Amino acid sequence: MEISQSWEARAAAKRADTLEKIPEGWRLSPADLARAKSQRDLTGAFIEQFLTLGEIAITTKDSIDLVNEIREKQLTAVQVTTAFCKRAAVAHQVNNCLHEIFFTRALTRAAQLDAHLATTNSPVGPLHGLPISLKDQFHVKGVDTTMGYIGWIGRNLGVTDPAQTHHIESQLTTELLSVGAVLYCKTSLPQTLLFGETKNNIIGETLNPHNQHLSCGGSSGGEGALLALGGSNLGVGTDIGGSVRIPAAFNGVFALKPTPERLSYRDVANTNPGQNTYRSTVGFLSTSLGGLELGLRAVLGTKPWVRDPAVVPIPFRGEVAGEYRRSALNFGVLWADHAVGPHPPVLRGLREVVEALRQAGHKVVDWEPPLQATAKRIHFSFLFADGAHDVHSHLTLSGEPLLPDLEGSFKLGDPIPLAEYQDLTLQGLDYERAYSDYWNSTAAADGQVVDAVIMPVAPHAAVIPGKYYHTAYTEVINLMNYSAAVIPVTKANKTVDVVDASYQPVSEVDRMNWDAYDPDIYHGAPVGVQLVARKFEEEKILAIAGVAMEALKAFRNK
Amino acid sequence: MEISQSWEARAAAKRADTLEKIPEGWRLSPADLARAKSQRDLTGAFIEQFLTLGEIAITTKDSIDLVNEIREKQLTAVQVTTAFCKRAAVAHQVNNCLHEIFFTRALTRAAQLDAHLATTNSPVGPLHGLPISLKDQFHVKGVDTTMGYIGWIGRNLGVTDPAQTHHIESQLTTELLSVGAVLYCKTSLPQTLLFGETKNNIIGETLNPHNQHLSCGGSSGGEGALLALGGSNLGVGTDIGGSVRIPAAFNGVFALKPTPERLSYRDVANTNPGQNTYRSTVGFLSTSLGGLELGLRAVLGTKPWVRDPAVVPIPFRGEVAGEYRRSALNFGVLWADHAVGPHPPVLRGLREVVEALRQAGHKVVDWEPPLQATAKRIHFSFLFADGAHDVHSHLTLSGEPLLPDLEGSFKLGDPIPLAEYQDLTLQGLDYERAYSDYWNSTAAADGQVVDAVIMPVAPHAAVIPGKYYHTAYTEVINLMNYSAAVIPVTKANKTVDVVDASYQPVSEVDRMNWDAYDPDIYHGAPVGVQLVARKFEEEKILAIAGVAMEALKAFRNK
Repeated sequence: MEISQSWEARAAAKRADTLEKIPEGWRLSPADLARAKSQRDLTGAFIEQFLTLGEIAITTKDSIDLVNEIREKQLTAVQVTTAFCKRAAVAHQVNNCLHEIFFTRALTRAAQLDAHLATTNSPVGPLHGLPISLKDQFHVKGVDTTMGYIGWIGRNLGVTDPAQTHHIESQLTTELLSVGAVLYCKTSLPQTLLFGETKNNIIGETLNPHNQHLSCGGSSGGEGALLALGGSNLGVGTDIGGSVRIPAAFNGVFALKPTPERLSYRDVANTNPGQNTYRSTVGFLSTSLGGLELGLRAVLGTKPWVRDPAVVPIPFRGEVAGEYRRSALNFGVLWADHAVGPHPPVLRGLREVVEALRQAGHKVVDWEPPLQATAKRIHFSFLFADGAHDVHSHLTLSGEPLLPDLEGSFKLGDPIPLAEYQDLTLQGLDYERAYSDYWNSTAAADGQVVDAVIMPVAPHAAVIPGKYYHTAYTEVINLMNYSAAVIPVTKANKTVDVVDASYQPVSEVDRMNWDAYDPDIYHGAPVGVQLVARKFEEEKILAIAGVAMEALKAFRNK
Repeated sequence: MEISQSWEARAAAKRADTLEKIPEGWRLSPADLARAKSQRDLTGAFIEQFLTLGEIAITTKDSIDLVNEIREKQLTAVQVTTAFCKRAAVAHQVNNCLHEIFFTRALTRAAQLDAHLATTNSPVGPLHGLPISLKDQFHVKGVDTTMGYIGWIGRNLGVTDPAQTHHIESQLTTELLSVGAVLYCKTSLPQTLLFGETKNNIIGETLNPHNQHLSCGGSSGGEGALLALGGSNLGVGTDIGGSVRIPAAFNGVFALKPTPERLSYRDVANTNPGQNTYRSTVGFLSTSLGGLELGLRAVLGTKPWVRDPAVVPIPFRGEVAGEYRRSALNFGVLWADHAVGPHPPVLRGLREVVEALRQAGHKVVDWEPPLQATAKRIHFSFLFADGAHDVHSHLTLSGEPLLPDLEGSFKLGDPIPLAEYQDLTLQGLDYERAYSDYWNSTAAADGQVVDAVIMPVAPHAAVIPGKYYHTAYTEVINLMNYSAAVIPVTKANKTVDVVDASYQPVSEVDRMNWDAYDPDIYHGAPVGVQLVARKFEEEKILAIAGVAMEALKAFRNK
């Protein structure tokens, strides 16, 4: 079969095939496509010129409003699905953010949901009629999962048995469908998944829709970009080193990274799943905070732990929100990690959050945990412990090359010895306990332990392709398996975020990162921060993110 | 210092030192010691001849009654502690079940608790005044943790810095003290911890107090033996392959093996802690079911997850009990695992539980999960993955030899390659999911999924030393990280449990195990069964164990 084709030809055929799935009426003209290429910012007005007012009205609503209006029959699932499919189709043509398109199936499903509601007057579940996008690790029946590998095109996971191809469905996919979601597309991600940008040999690259000089981040990059373009209101990604939080921050949207084992990862494609010491976690990205909570609550309502024994049986704890929606919370703030300092736009973002919280009556103290460099070293060692054998086994299927960006980290080599692996395990556990002890020590000052910590997601707002040098700000949170939320705060502004010429880099990597800051290039890049709580505190961190958003709003209205 | 002594001399000195800590008035005469040696059963009447009626009355009460009577000032903590110390002292002299004795400190503590209660009229916590025994992996300040290693004598964990020696305290120790427990002794365990009997080069061997032809089991063997002798009412052990459940079943007491991460393992000595894929779990053993619940509830009330980041934040869920204290529960029963069939006493024990539950209105169906042999192979591979380097590093400290019983499993060798380790990880996850799917499939018959499964703990009631050939019945539960309770059911009876000459062994190991059954030798050995629920279902399995005990009582009163 197609194995005889070159990998380039197979990738080109796949790209053409995906574009073919866009209805003719939704295709952009060559002139429009050229115009998009020269555009700095594709969001808002630019993308909305291709939509009707009705479509704009629908696709700018948040997830809660959408499900409410469908339930109350002010909108039909078909109307909502059509609008999001069209906006996603336009987004993909200008931004390259989709791997899979299955609009026809989505519209059939939406029609069934509308019929169900009309007949029974009762929604299928809390996500009735809501379009949800999925990162291309989640299996949907009848659809490819390529995860960016050319060798997986035409199937899932590279499985070659035609009887199995396209029959697999991730547990989370099943759960979303069971509570009424409409699935319509799968979004782009980088080769290997372990990369803070979104590039692979199938789609090429997904850039940042707010600023095409920059990357959309990764690895759930297509999700971040699609949400920024309004082509989705709620999406599902995964995060083992920042892959949900980075694209959320870089694209100006909200995200929840739960503790692994809160949501099901069963039957989800992944890189090197045999490395189960530090696990990737399923998370949500959304244009609203309410969307994150809606998704979490809806999925947990299906009791994922009954079907996936890896999931811890903690139901959604709605009562937690009330405990934290009060004033006088205690925050820590990590300004910098003694390794690589954040660029001026990120520092300003942190300052705005801190000021807003203080004005709202909360306390914020400086956060000086055990050195992030230690956590980064340990975590990194696990991700690359197998000598990249897993990644190369998938590249070999088609003969496609490793991306040049990844040649440094993913050179095929010997796995590390087991003794070293087990010693690293002990180091990781030690670090986790030391961090936890530090957290508890914050009670010493006034008896009140820090409720959450404000941190950069990365030392930059988005990233210039090829210049992502330091992932410790997100990785350290994965080492502890903490829960985290990302909120959008501001945008880089060349007039305000000027270069601080007095900055003294503390290391060569710090210097490289500092030198990469260019106010003109970064202008308009979204700045998000992460709010971090401890393990299995998803409801708490969402409540606290709400507190922070309200404080920011009040701060700006002053 | 003592390093110049032979390992034999150091072990002998340690044994003498421990005996020295027994007050003179509690020491047995050489004649009594000789009489004990020739005694088949040391429990009940035999050990009680050395106690006053008052001491017998106290030490035969269950944990709930003890804390209630102390709280209501019908007993003092000093009275209770004295009685248990004395009974434990006698038990150790005839049964060799203690590693550490610290009665003086216990009595001081008890007096302080009494004073506190007298002054404030309020107990320190739910375990106020209750003596609790600890397996010798838990660190208590001022006391050795040898874990059976001669090289650790005089210190904890073999740490040689005198400034650190004896200053370490396991988090669980701290928690027990914080809720009012009195700690007074640490119990014996086998060299390596990974052995179903209790032998090491310091204390020699702990035999089964019900039947000195048999072993007390392991690795929490001293706990099981001490409880059987009434020298404790509630003890703490650990279980990575059956080490809490085996000694409970072999000694006729109750046990709870939680899912790892329910209770804190922080700062607890362990074998090869760098193998963190399949983790050992802290569990309780007790003379009563109420003792298990009391211990679990009291410790969880201290919120262990705040101090140990490995612990999952699930508080004690008291409301669960009510859900399962009803008739018409659904049970599965595993009669045999197609590898090694249980001896007649164990089969009778299973039958009695099944009959009792059926008579009480519950449903029991045969349980045919994925083959236990698969789980056993995977689990075993993890325990021995490091080529026994960890164990040998501790033996080397003193030059003591590996026990002959362990030479087969713990020969020093190369750790397995990481690729194999990661592949085994995937196999383990697959097995866990297949088992969970099988469990869910039991709903097919009548829509009601099995609530708990009744299983043998081992293919024999206790074990003839040297004849423990098959640990799959417990290990498979560790591979799934399920929660389990052990209940005592009956005792081997040579008149009833005759050899079944028609039995056809299915394998060589099955034949060896079958041939090891001798009705005369086994007569009087306790038979326990394990009741198994899924992950983090500790409250549920305790409630169901209560249902089973009530059913057995009603069945016998018929």
